[in-house]
Amino acid sequence: MSVLGRRGIHYFHKLNSANVPTSLIQKGQNRVIEASLTLIRERAKLKGELVRALGGAVASASLLGVPLGHNSSFLQGPAFAPPRIREAIWCGSTNPTTEEGKEVTDPRVLTDVGDVPVQEIRDCGVDDERLMKVVSESVKLVMEEDPLRPLVLGGDHSISYPVIRAVSEKLGGQVDILHLDAHPDNYNAYEGNYFSHASSFARIMEGGYARRLLQVGIRSISQEGREQCKRFGVELYEMRTFSRDREYLENLKLGEGVKGVYVSIDLDSLDPAFAPGVSHIEPGGLSFRDVLNIIHNLKGDIVGADVVEFNPQRDTVDGMTAMVAAKLVRELTAKIAK
Amino acid sequence: MSVLGRRGIHYFHKLNSANVPTSLIQKGQNRVIEASLTLIRERAKLKGELVRALGGAVASASLLGVPLGHNSSFLQGPAFAPPRIREAIWCGSTNPTTEEGKEVTDPRVLTDVGDVPVQEIRDCGVDDERLMKVVSESVKLVMEEDPLRPLVLGGDHSISYPVIRAVSEKLGGQVDILHLDAHPDNYNAYEGNYFSHASSFARIMEGGYARRLLQVGIRSISQEGREQCKRFGVELYEMRTFSRDREYLENLKLGEGVKGVYVSIDLDSLDPAFAPGVSHIEPGGLSFRDVLNIIHNLKGDIVGADVVEFNPQRDTVDGMTAMVAAKLVRELTAKIAK
Amino acid sequence: MSVLGRRGIHYFHKLNSANVPTSLIQKGQNRVIEASLTLIRERAKLKGELVRALGGAVASASLLGVPLGHNSSFLQGPAFAPPRIREAIWCGSTNPTTEEGKEVTDPRVLTDVGDVPVQEIRDCGVDDERLMKVVSESVKLVMEEDPLRPLVLGGDHSISYPVIRAVSEKLGGQVDILHLDAHPDNYNAYEGNYFSHASSFARIMEGGYARRLLQVGIRSISQEGREQCKRFGVELYEMRTFSRDREYLENLKLGEGVKGVYVSIDLDSLDPAFAPGVSHIEPGGLSFRDVLNIIHNLKGDIVGADVVEFNPQRDTVDGMTAMVAAKLVRELTAKIAK
Amino acid sequence: MSVLGRRGIHYFHKLNSANVPTSLIQKGQNRVIEASLTLIRERAKLKGELVRALGGAVASASLLGVPLGHNSSFLQGPAFAPPRIREAIWCGSTNPTTEEGKEVTDPRVLTDVGDVPVQEIRDCGVDDERLMKVVSESVKLVMEEDPLRPLVLGGDHSISYPVIRAVSEKLGGQVDILHLDAHPDNYNAYEGNYFSHASSFARIMEGGYARRLLQVGIRSISQEGREQCKRFGVELYEMRTFSRDREYLENLKLGEGVKGVYVSIDLDSLDPAFAPGVSHIEPGGLSFRDVLNIIHNLKGDIVGADVVEFNPQRDTVDGMTAMVAAKLVRELTAKIAK
Amino acid sequence: MSVLGRRGIHYFHKLNSANVPTSLIQKGQNRVIEASLTLIRERAKLKGELVRALGGAVASASLLGVPLGHNSSFLQGPAFAPPRIREAIWCGSTNPTTEEGKEVTDPRVLTDVGDVPVQEIRDCGVDDERLMKVVSESVKLVMEEDPLRPLVLGGDHSISYPVIRAVSEKLGGQVDILHLDAHPDNYNAYEGNYFSHASSFARIMEGGYARRLLQVGIRSISQEGREQCKRFGVELYEMRTFSRDREYLENLKLGEGVKGVYVSIDLDSLDPAFAPGVSHIEPGGLSFRDVLNIIHNLKGDIVGADVVEFNPQRDTVDGMTAMVAAKLVRELTAKIAK
Amino acid sequence: MSVLGRRGIHYFHKLNSANVPTSLIQKGQNRVIEASLTLIRERAKLKGELVRALGGAVASASLLGVPLGHNSSFLQGPAFAPPRIREAIWCGSTNPTTEEGKEVTDPRVLTDVGDVPVQEIRDCGVDDERLMKVVSESVKLVMEEDPLRPLVLGGDHSISYPVIRAVSEKLGGQVDILHLDAHPDNYNAYEGNYFSHASSFARIMEGGYARRLLQVGIRSISQEGREQCKRFGVELYEMRTFSRDREYLENLKLGEGVKGVYVSIDLDSLDPAFAPGVSHIEPGGLSFRDVLNIIHNLKGDIVGADVVEFNPQRDTVDGMTAMVAAKLVRELTAKIAK
Repeated sequence: MSVLGRRGIHYFHKLNSANVPTSLIQKGQNRVIEASLTLIRERAKLKGELVRALGGAVASASLLGVPLGHNSSFLQGPAFAPPRIREAIWCGSTNPTTEEGKEVTDPRVLTDVGDVPVQEIRDCGVDDERLMKVVSESVKLVMEEDPLRPLVLGGDHSISYPVIRAVSEKLGGQVDILHLDAHPDNYNAYEGNYFSHASSFARIMEGGYARRLLQVGIRSISQEGREQCKRFGVELYEMRTFSRDREYLENLKLGEGVKGVYVSIDLDSLDPAFAPGVSHIEPGGLSFRDVLNIIHNLKGDIVGADVVEFNPQRDTVDGMTAMVAAKLVRELTAKIAK
Repeated sequence: MSVLGRRGIHYFHKLNSANVPTSLIQKGQNRVIEASLTLIRERAKLKGELVRALGGAVASASLLGVPLGHNSSFLQGPAFAPPRIREAIWCGSTNPTTEEGKEVTDPRVLTDVGDVPVQEIRDCGVDDERLMKVVSESVKLVMEEDPLRPLVLGGDHSISYPVIRAVSEKLGGQVDILHLDAHPDNYNAYEGNYFSHASSFARIMEGGYARRLLQVGIRSISQEGREQCKRFGVELYEMRTFSRDREYLENLKLGEGVKGVYVSIDLDSLDPAFAPGVSHIEPGGLSFRDVLNIIHNLKGDIVGADVVEFNPQRDTVDGMTAMVAAKLVRELTAKIAK
Repeated sequence: MSVLGRRGIHYFHKLNSANVPTSLIQKGQNRVIEASLTLIRERAKLKGELVRALGGAVASASLLGVPLGHNSSFLQGPAFAPPRIREAIWCGSTNPTTEEGKEVTDPRVLTDVGDVPVQEIRDCGVDDERLMKVVSESVKLVMEEDPLRPLVLGGDHSISYPVIRAVSEKLGGQVDILHLDAHPDNYNAYEGNYFSHASSFARIMEGGYARRLLQVGIRSISQEGREQCKRFGVELYEMRTFSRDREYLENLKLGEGVKGVYVSIDLDSLDPAFAPGVSHIEPGGLSFRDVLNIIHNLKGDIVGADVVEFNPQRDTVDGMTAMVAAKLVRELTAKIAK
Repeated sequence: MSVLGRRGIHYFHKLNSANVPTSLIQKGQNRVIEASLTLIRERAKLKGELVRALGGAVASASLLGVPLGHNSSFLQGPAFAPPRIREAIWCGSTNPTTEEGKEVTDPRVLTDVGDVPVQEIRDCGVDDERLMKVVSESVKLVMEEDPLRPLVLGGDHSISYPVIRAVSEKLGGQVDILHLDAHPDNYNAYEGNYFSHASSFARIMEGGYARRLLQVGIRSISQEGREQCKRFGVELYEMRTFSRDREYLENLKLGEGVKGVYVSIDLDSLDPAFAPGVSHIEPGGLSFRDVLNIIHNLKGDIVGADVVEFNPQRDTVDGMTAMVAAKLVRELTAKIAK
Repeated sequence: MSVLGRRGIHYFHKLNSANVPTSLIQKGQNRVIEASLTLIRERAKLKGELVRALGGAVASASLLGVPLGHNSSFLQGPAFAPPRIREAIWCGSTNPTTEEGKEVTDPRVLTDVGDVPVQEIRDCGVDDERLMKVVSESVKLVMEEDPLRPLVLGGDHSISYPVIRAVSEKLGGQVDILHLDAHPDNYNAYEGNYFSHASSFARIMEGGYARRLLQVGIRSISQEGREQCKRFGVELYEMRTFSRDREYLENLKLGEGVKGVYVSIDLDSLDPAFAPGVSHIEPGGLSFRDVLNIIHNLKGDIVGADVVEFNPQRDTVDGMTAMVAAKLVRELTAKIAK
Repeated sequence: MSVLGRRGIHYFHKLNSANVPTSLIQKGQNRVIEASLTLIRERAKLKGELVRALGGAVASASLLGVPLGHNSSFLQGPAFAPPRIREAIWCGSTNPTTEEGKEVTDPRVLTDVGDVPVQEIRDCGVDDERLMKVVSESVKLVMEEDPLRPLVLGGDHSISYPVIRAVSEKLGGQVDILHLDAHPDNYNAYEGNYFSHASSFARIMEGGYARRLLQVGIRSISQEGREQCKRFGVELYEMRTFSRDREYLENLKLGEGVKGVYVSIDLDSLDPAFAPGVSHIEPGGLSFRDVLNIIHNLKGDIVGADVVEFNPQRDTVDGMTAMVAAKLVRELTAKIAK
């Protein structure tokens, strides 16, 4: 429904042509952004205090939702994803023990900091550059609260740029990135959008936030995409050769010598049979078990992660893809927590 | 999916049996609530400043979302409604002129204050009594910014109680309520829940916030419901006799001698043919045009309104009910703004 | 899925060409039919005893399901309807009080005798003539238990013939029939099928079971249909003239001077907007409220009723038409019980 | 799926920058267009010969499909409509007798000339101006074959312009137009598109093809729309006042003193409850019976008609809106044929 | 729709507080149960006589439906499964030859005894303990008729307990069980329900009905689940290690030295991509071919089997999961028959 | 919806019993067929001229749609497939580079000749034998235009017979056929239909058009099917043994010593999890990646191909199977073009 609209900027179109003082708007925006960050800080702080009071956790996953879909090139549905993923995580039809035995009901394993108020900030006329800074800042506020580590719920894939930027800056060095996706998302600027979900990994590599970038599940890549991969030294694992690469990918060891590992899972890395609720249906992808095998057997210290591009507006009526996203979140939680 | 779960209270179950100091939790909750209200205040303030800077508006509708579904007796889907209604309001498939000629893109007609962070507050272990106070407080913060008037997006029908309480308290007197619904929502306490969506109008009448309460569209009412109607002096208009009552209802004049009129529209007042995306399917209701005729011809000063019980999880794949909710919001906006 | 198949007769095709003694089959069929009727008798008896023990009921509705769909000319889905209607009757999303105040949880108002085991009987190679006799016999077993009156859940419309035959025979005289439908169902024999759902009212009129037959909601009628209406003296109320006929139809008085009134509601009498879950989508029908107005204001002693042609395989995912069928059953129950 | 793409012009983008001689392309386009029209001429001729051979028909409806969706402002699905409407016309679930007794299986009542090969013509790089001329030409080829009259299956509403132009030109004078729609479709040029489906009636009125234009069902109209209505002398019947206008509209007499009446039915004139399969969901519209009442009681010589904006990609899984479109086609057929 | 309701016990709630003699109810229940078993006996007997008359069969599969869903912890939809699976077995879109060449239209391969009237028995106020005995008794009645062997159509997984109990008791000794499932279903008592579908294999192991229990496909298991597995000596094959276990599982040899093999297939053992129509969506499961490979290559005498937890209310509109269940039934039939 | 109807032959039933001269009809049919072929010739010619003008292509894929569904034994939906596949090919959600790097926007790689007007030809009373000749003729018209090679969009599988006949006749010799399907489609005459989609490969083998026929993905085959395979020397690769055959099938070398390779992909060769939008749901099939591996690694000169049996009426609402069909078309295009 949203494909033609650019939401949340209605009021401010009018204002440019009216005689509303710019300073009035700017001051208001500043106050709204400041209040937004204060709210996230307080929620993170309470969750951090609780985990520390309970004691015994060295690393603990904490959910941060970023309901942002407007940098998608096709459909904006991922903006609706975070509350649906949370619902599926706690859905009564499954149990809260992960496949390897962690209990996600234990706050030392998993807490939740809530959502960045993306729609509300945009509706105040804030532009994307500043919005992305708010996302980065929010991630840092979570990381401030030891032992919390950010597990970000997208949103479209454009959010991985501000998130990884924050993780790397906060940790003070590069990370290794394991990136599961049907697409390399490394266009210089897709349809002129610097922050496009198809450009996030160009931004990340330009920023120098990653030592290694492994892209797994790729099966839709243009000539420009291949050139960008070469330019950035990406380790590209295409689906065409997955049966050959499987053994390597199911035994990864990452993050040594850098600040750790960041895992970014775009749901369209999965074949649409397993995850129909995505904006870009690209047949020929990974099975759910393939993804779990890669994650379960990954050796490395996971310092952050995201699950992105779930589009509830394309999901089955019973929310199969929400359950898929939720299980990925639970299993990532189990890998992060220790 | 959510029917068996009670979301957002996972962490705090554990904590009761652990040795986490109560004061730590209480202080954290206080800080989170305070920050939440600060954020709403700042958003309302910026929108108020804009409208006043543009000038010329005496009354202006401002959206406030309350994504709260856990007081529903059947399905919790209405918690997902506010972002879907916003998307439909600005959907490119329709135009922003209301049937009587108002432009909803004009901020003097319609602004948006965003959502109360319900899920995040509950996830900090805050109970319903306090949460409802946050909702009331948020409504008052909108009303603080003259000429903004609250047009609340539910959520389940339990939110009408804190909203109407706030409107009446802020205005300093009673209002007349036009309430469209399949059910009277006046149980003393449904399944023991004082804040149940089936009890909100019992709370409102007990609180003395309404002079007159007109209930229109009723077609599912128990013996207790009828008795409560008598007890509270409700003016009950059942569907059984709608063809007889139509002329009166399409020419209402309300709110004189009190602080104004409050309109509460439960989407299940519509027949499910017109609004399938609701939790309680009750055939035999109003047509969409019936509702518009009642609203368009209503005479009175509308000081607040809500559109509740839209359940996106029951909507058609193309979001027909979202469009229905959005059109009701746009037409209510046109009635409020002047 | 079932459109091309004729279910339940697989075994017996083979047997005709094998040397299995006919007597073996016939004896087995007899025993199965006898046991089926015994089971229905016992269930009816227990329900009758209960209602009589509770006392005070003069007439009480009792559900009898007839999951028979193979006499449909288009889709066989109505065979799956009875359990879905029962589920919707007791669904937690609505309340058990009817619009005029009867409580359907009171066994003096409504009991349930269960389903005729149609599939199992057919699977033993029993032909339609005999099957229809089992349906008639089952209806009589319900009527045997004073004060129970049959409220039959179809199934396709072919079942109205054996049901009305039984009602008339058991009462010892004619009834008046109020028949709501998009089609007259009075073909001499549709596609050669004497028991077709498009022929049931030809059978009923030929059998002399009805004094008056009022057909309401008709909007798909062939030349043959019109001639049959004349031949049988049917009172035909077409949708084309409904706005003119409405007042008469909303004030019917039937059944005096005969044994009472039988009400047969084909769900396709409703416009598909209100009841999409039917096999024969015929736009331009009655609204749900139109049907309720006719039923609520009907004066007469209702001695039996059916709700047929609900096809769960065409319903919306959330079962809107099941709720429609269930509400019709509840409101008919309230009319029958006294 | 098609929202972002402009189909059928892929090859020719490349060619502009390659050294393919323009004359090669132009000659090829001319030959393809000529062959397309020849094919339509032959099909119309055969159908005309048949009807004349059978004898006795003074006017006879003949279907012409125009699978054109690219001038829609929102979704292109109406390009897929004509084959789906045909399937529904002949669907075994309904019977071929119209409500007033005509048999659509009689070729003297209804024949079919097939589709204009829109996609194939566009894929040869032909622009819209020329494509619209092919549509006009095709309509004239049908009218050439006495007693055939065009009943056009859209396609989006942009096709009414070339169709009505052809009807008027062929008949040599103006017609009266009965136009059922949620929108006036009279923008000067919507989003810069002269042929937009939102502009067709501006083109028609500018062309002088209509004496009177009655627009019924309108409920989404901008300020520009209202001004265009005044400019063109449109008789505007808005849904807001339908209950007041109903009696007039259900007794129309049109076309006297001009060449006859043209009926254009946009499916979104119906409320989405009755016709969910449309691109522009606009609640508050006509019921199916309202539309039939207007059509059945219309007095006048119908010289052409169209049924447009059915979008199969938004229909229910069981094709309810296809059945709605098909029944409108059948009932229009009955009005045309004599 | 049914999630909050407990169906079929409405009448008897009232009766406890009324003065209906207990003996009246008990006698009625006894007669209904007796008649139910008589009906199953007669149907089984006829089918047995036929197969024996045809001659040549040593073992023959016979369907017994158990439409029981109320012991599910989440959704009750499996109560609607048996008729849908039957429809899919005979669906005209596939052919009746199994992959290894058996003809399921041959009654020596497959017959059908029909359904246990679960809803009707519960509606008479019969409790679960007794109901489960009726299920056991029904299974024994099938086994009474040599060479019939029970192939049970669930229903939720709670039915495997009474079924396997009956098989073991009737054969007079233990069986080996091959159990495909996402969950171990071995809770001591899930949510206090001794007969819960999450506890059936605890009951089976406590009863001593199985020598070996192989659980395959497991991917949701709590700490209690793992402990119960140890306690009962379960051979646990988790999906985590399926690629390693595959060769063993695709070459099983079971049942020697005991009374044979029982196969229990919970449809959620399959990945939801292959079987979306289940109540508990648990991604990461077996492919359909994985299951067939295990079944086709299993060596052993299969004395009984069940296919459970198909939930038609969660299936795709075209019944993909029904086809999956039906194909499993057909292939199991081929393994049983000889 | 179409299951019971035989479309497009309505007019001509009447005519047989009327006194319309046969010659009138035959002459008209001849003219329509001639005009149809002329139109296809012109479209092919223009596309051929363009590709030759651009230069450098030795072989180039050209789409030809055959919207024919009436020879299906179950559902006729494949008649609607070609426009949906085209839409998905150019859908903005994916990019036009194939997995191995070809650009399908380059007309030297892919052009489109449009659809054979199947419905219109049948609606003129033309019988199947002649219609099939038109299909063959159309294929030859494409092949006439060097370097175009036909990539045919079905339609049901009956079209492969006239297509392969044309390819072989035009090339003047046999081809090797790689046929992916759940069924062998080699019945002598299914339900008496010589042109049935279940008989096409019997026709092809009888005609001597193929040297080798490899059938891959088979999992529903009757006794007659197996015998026909033997009779025709088919190389049968059943799913039962796919894990064993995989290595051979992923390294095929075909077409040497004959005129080349023809690839026919029935979408039901895929498991319904990957391609739900088919008429014959047969679980246990190939994954999408399995199919791509076979195609990508196939060595041989592909002279023609088809993708058939996509049924849009069974697809998911977001068109997953359309995307699957489109990606197969794109990847086949890349294999053909050189």
